[in-house]
Amino acid sequence: MYSGDVRGLSHKTKDLLVASINSVRRSIKRIPVVSVGGLLVVPAFLLGQPSVDFAESIDEISFVFNTFSFLVWGALVMWMCAGFTMLESGSVRTKNASMICLKNIGLYSIAGLAFFFIGYNLMYVDVGDFIGSFKLMYGPSSDELALLNGEEGALGGVVDQGYATMSDWFFQMVFVATTASIVSGALAERVRMWPFFIFTLALTAIIYPIVGAWTWGGGWLSQMGFQDFAGSTIVHSTGGWAALAGVMIAGPRLGKFRANGDVRPTPPSNVLVVTLGVFILWLGWFGFNGGSQLKLGSAVDAVAMSNILVNTNLAAAAGVIVSLAFSRFIFGRVDLIVGLNGAIAGLVSITAGPDLTDHYWAVIIGAIGGILCSAGMRLLEKLKLDDVVGAIPAHLIAGVWGTLAVCVAAGGDFIAQIVGVLAVGVFVFVLSWLLWKALALSPLGIRVTRDVEELGQDAGELGIEAYPEFVLMPETYEEK
Amino acid sequence: MYSGDVRGLSHKTKDLLVASINSVRRSIKRIPVVSVGGLLVVPAFLLGQPSVDFAESIDEISFVFNTFSFLVWGALVMWMCAGFTMLESGSVRTKNASMICLKNIGLYSIAGLAFFFIGYNLMYVDVGDFIGSFKLMYGPSSDELALLNGEEGALGGVVDQGYATMSDWFFQMVFVATTASIVSGALAERVRMWPFFIFTLALTAIIYPIVGAWTWGGGWLSQMGFQDFAGSTIVHSTGGWAALAGVMIAGPRLGKFRANGDVRPTPPSNVLVVTLGVFILWLGWFGFNGGSQLKLGSAVDAVAMSNILVNTNLAAAAGVIVSLAFSRFIFGRVDLIVGLNGAIAGLVSITAGPDLTDHYWAVIIGAIGGILCSAGMRLLEKLKLDDVVGAIPAHLIAGVWGTLAVCVAAGGDFIAQIVGVLAVGVFVFVLSWLLWKALALSPLGIRVTRDVEELGQDAGELGIEAYPEFVLMPETYEEK
Amino acid sequence: MYSGDVRGLSHKTKDLLVASINSVRRSIKRIPVVSVGGLLVVPAFLLGQPSVDFAESIDEISFVFNTFSFLVWGALVMWMCAGFTMLESGSVRTKNASMICLKNIGLYSIAGLAFFFIGYNLMYVDVGDFIGSFKLMYGPSSDELALLNGEEGALGGVVDQGYATMSDWFFQMVFVATTASIVSGALAERVRMWPFFIFTLALTAIIYPIVGAWTWGGGWLSQMGFQDFAGSTIVHSTGGWAALAGVMIAGPRLGKFRANGDVRPTPPSNVLVVTLGVFILWLGWFGFNGGSQLKLGSAVDAVAMSNILVNTNLAAAAGVIVSLAFSRFIFGRVDLIVGLNGAIAGLVSITAGPDLTDHYWAVIIGAIGGILCSAGMRLLEKLKLDDVVGAIPAHLIAGVWGTLAVCVAAGGDFIAQIVGVLAVGVFVFVLSWLLWKALALSPLGIRVTRDVEELGQDAGELGIEAYPEFVLMPETYEEK
Repeated sequence: MYSGDVRGLSHKTKDLLVASINSVRRSIKRIPVVSVGGLLVVPAFLLGQPSVDFAESIDEISFVFNTFSFLVWGALVMWMCAGFTMLESGSVRTKNASMICLKNIGLYSIAGLAFFFIGYNLMYVDVGDFIGSFKLMYGPSSDELALLNGEEGALGGVVDQGYATMSDWFFQMVFVATTASIVSGALAERVRMWPFFIFTLALTAIIYPIVGAWTWGGGWLSQMGFQDFAGSTIVHSTGGWAALAGVMIAGPRLGKFRANGDVRPTPPSNVLVVTLGVFILWLGWFGFNGGSQLKLGSAVDAVAMSNILVNTNLAAAAGVIVSLAFSRFIFGRVDLIVGLNGAIAGLVSITAGPDLTDHYWAVIIGAIGGILCSAGMRLLEKLKLDDVVGAIPAHLIAGVWGTLAVCVAAGGDFIAQIVGVLAVGVFVFVLSWLLWKALALSPLGIRVTRDVEELGQDAGELGIEAYPEFVLMPETYEEK
Repeated sequence: MYSGDVRGLSHKTKDLLVASINSVRRSIKRIPVVSVGGLLVVPAFLLGQPSVDFAESIDEISFVFNTFSFLVWGALVMWMCAGFTMLESGSVRTKNASMICLKNIGLYSIAGLAFFFIGYNLMYVDVGDFIGSFKLMYGPSSDELALLNGEEGALGGVVDQGYATMSDWFFQMVFVATTASIVSGALAERVRMWPFFIFTLALTAIIYPIVGAWTWGGGWLSQMGFQDFAGSTIVHSTGGWAALAGVMIAGPRLGKFRANGDVRPTPPSNVLVVTLGVFILWLGWFGFNGGSQLKLGSAVDAVAMSNILVNTNLAAAAGVIVSLAFSRFIFGRVDLIVGLNGAIAGLVSITAGPDLTDHYWAVIIGAIGGILCSAGMRLLEKLKLDDVVGAIPAHLIAGVWGTLAVCVAAGGDFIAQIVGVLAVGVFVFVLSWLLWKALALSPLGIRVTRDVEELGQDAGELGIEAYPEFVLMPETYEEK
Repeated sequence: MYSGDVRGLSHKTKDLLVASINSVRRSIKRIPVVSVGGLLVVPAFLLGQPSVDFAESIDEISFVFNTFSFLVWGALVMWMCAGFTMLESGSVRTKNASMICLKNIGLYSIAGLAFFFIGYNLMYVDVGDFIGSFKLMYGPSSDELALLNGEEGALGGVVDQGYATMSDWFFQMVFVATTASIVSGALAERVRMWPFFIFTLALTAIIYPIVGAWTWGGGWLSQMGFQDFAGSTIVHSTGGWAALAGVMIAGPRLGKFRANGDVRPTPPSNVLVVTLGVFILWLGWFGFNGGSQLKLGSAVDAVAMSNILVNTNLAAAAGVIVSLAFSRFIFGRVDLIVGLNGAIAGLVSITAGPDLTDHYWAVIIGAIGGILCSAGMRLLEKLKLDDVVGAIPAHLIAGVWGTLAVCVAAGGDFIAQIVGVLAVGVFVFVLSWLLWKALALSPLGIRVTRDVEELGQDAGELGIEAYPEFVLMPETYEEK
């Protein structure tokens, strides 16, 4: 391609030039430059694309940072599934705890497969205004395959992607699993396993990906200016609406709401496990919000990611403290469960705009999220909607609040935010309602029998008790 | 600013020069160099600060590494709060386990807010010999705000910081939470919630930040040569001294020490959860010590961080094995709880100097830490000091040992280490003692009533039992 | 060493040259270049090794990435020990759960020390065909020590290593711990503590390192072309063979297999904890397989690592779903425990070749692994082999399958894979069998007495009950 003709240059000049050229060659310890008859022979590859070479080095480093960020933070988001599992299985009565474990490991598996076979393409590939592609499966880019096969010249195309194709897929996949996790808690203790899994499949293969196509996929809401950094609406409200539809159709647990208007308390059966679950979620949320910066390969991204983690933590802390105080002053006693849910609500609230730079706003947003969640828990009881773990207040109500709070704290477009909240709400709720209704009317049904509900899903439906050797208090229902 | 006049140079020379210059330009795919009438026009920004440009690329990469290290390892340190929660809630009797959960999620939240509003500034901003600034709140640097706003020229100032401002804040914040976690375990099962939270606020907003200002903040102990890499003294002993003062003032649990000198055994109520807590702490300690290298953006930092993780693991492993053996030979049986506490003691012991390069020293330091902790657990019993989870032996005694061991293993200044241990000890113990005493004498009091203590804090104070459906053994106290 | 004589070059040329040279100097803000009497004095270090300087920057970045990858992913692999502990302690009957906690924290400690003092050198240092060195202890390289001491010129040698010496040690150490973890579960509820620890010592200091020397250490199997990316055979089958030998010699638990051929069901005592354990393992496996790429410092590594995490997740998800379906169709009910074991089996299956690029293959491999594991659990029962947690089906059977599946999915050499599977199997099984037999015949014995087994190891051998305050169901054995 090119050999540098350096005839007419002094020896020193040549030396300097060669030194300069050498300087930009990495990982070539012995530079193959020879002088032949006054013609300095510089290998073509040293000169042919010199700028690409160095630029590629730096860009390649950004590529590695971006990719590793997706993988590390994505792994922490996957860990949130364990958090939901612990939160939910500790919150239900002992007799239904194994079923929650099954539903959660099952939903995570279904979500991962559904997103691989259908969901990701529908959400991100060739998205028009409303949906992406119906192509089956997803995989590395052709440049990546070429690079892995050792083909010359593939590196540039790969580096231009900005991150490894499947690192992004991995990160997006753990998000869809989070959406599905929200549903299982709200519907615990009475919804049958098979219809739950069918709903999960539809949610993770179709419903969530379509919401995602409108927004993160670049569809109409995105074009309108709707902002939802890490998914207060897209992930958490979507899960919350799906849960709300299910709660309305499945109805409350036996004996939860008494004829005289009393609400039967159903305290968590294992408070330690619930607390562990909240800590897992809090940890995982650093990945959820931090990774949603989507890039790490520059100082500005690293700065933004740092601010995000700080805001995430402050909002959660404020959610806890304010919820505890709120429960003390309104209900007369500090309520641990309200405080734990306040952490979740604070986290959900900040998720739409965790990159704000005035950190006290995170405190305010998280605190208000905590109060709204606490109040929402009571509101649901008044409405006789039985949400076992408070998923709807923590994810739907706080999610809506967080999406709107972006306008106040970070200057989002209020109209776009309102439209986004409503559009996602109507779409997800209606589709979920129809699906739950169809399942309820099908021969399958969605509700366990009265006998199974009294006995518990663990013994009645699954055949595996959570703690078979422990002696438990007998439970009775007056209104049989 | 500058255009390269290349008249008089041959074409080839120009080409070579341009190629050389191009080589150092990153992320500019089409180089805007044109030759106009023999004058090679090189854009000024290509030549004006050529060295800054490339240096910034490399420094920017270091910046990203340093920042990401703080975030990833900091997230693992946050996870230690879950470890303490599990360790403590599994160690107490079932009737007090929910209260431990509440105290721990509460203390983490309080610590995070206190450090944001007051603590960090007091510890790190404008530190003279003794304290930093009383300014409220903390946030990104002005350069970072400019960079996030897209202002030209802000990058250099940001990169010169070495890491994102709030990534450091995040990492330091999770440390103060660790200090507070130590206290809750020692004082479990009898100290009331509100005074505990008030003490936590003082510890995390004032006491710990002042100790930190003396040392990591650059104050008088630091100037004296006091070495405490990741906080054997600064974090762990501080927590231990605060706990000791509380234990002395609160007094032992009902029935712990009998009139005849017997010590009533109070075995953990949930050994699995205690073990899980220790594994969480062990994992989190990789972040605690590894992240305390404070930098990752060079080979020397990466090497040091690797050595640190290895030493951390070896010290913990030695702590376990030696504690188990010690319990077997001294007390006649292998004691799991002593072994688990040995892991903590090994970890605390190595924390003052985890960067040593003769790894067998880590084994020795951890082993001695384990023995001291095991012996310390018995010593406290002899002194009739009731430390529920062995926090004082594991964090205070092993912390002092580790701080002194630095002299032996890594050549620290023995005088400076002694002065540091004593100064921190006196300061924290006296302040904590006064604060606990004031709280005890206040109308609030620090101790639950006898009835609440017998019934348990969960039912008596909080109203939420840890495992309400499980049938528990009745517990009686002879000396009522 | 060298000063650039630039007499005869025009001023502009000099400027351009200097600018070019400057461009490649990092972190030197004021360039010490002066022109003395027409002789441009460029400091020797700017020219003497210019290519090394820049190359080192980029290579140093790769070094940091590679090292950090080992540390972060290694920390997640360490976390798998907590996963095994929870999986196993929740799977056994309550009366033996504390002993499982002790065995697991003990085995992780023993493995770490044994690998430091003996194992690593035997596996990786000066490996011939069969074993490495018998040198005691391991530590940083001499270049690293020089670099940490601030010696000039040490950087190049360190960077050439590719990663920090001890970061690799750390990553390899957590792998040996995984092998040991597999054994404790299979042999739970009847094998005594001391012989178990002795076996663990031999396994982690000798047996596993020799298998490792043959393969990852570069020995005869490696030379033959045997492929096992992250250790389906090397780690998981090795653990499985060691467990199988132990199960055969220790015999089944009392009452597990009745005279009439019935198998006594022994359901997990704590399903939540088992589920948590599986989630921990799943999370940790991202580190196990992802970190086994061994490098992160280039785009091709980042791409491969992303594919690896995706395949790991898909295989596990497929393992869960297929195992649940399999249990439903074959045994008449969805079995949570089979599903959880299916996740492990899927993970083990993909471990030999997680870098494949046709991701549907991961689904297929994991699914078949799940089925083989489910069927294997029944097979072991037919053979009257009592593997308490299903470790042998999940790790040995799925491990063999995964090692062979590499041939199908990624074009491995079938003969080499078969030879590897057999050679490792024979070696580990025979050595383990001999060692377990020797321990069984020694005065120590390997089996607890009938009284201790009935009472439980927690009360009978360890003296610490897992949940001492909880009332448990009495258990009786017909055939006494």
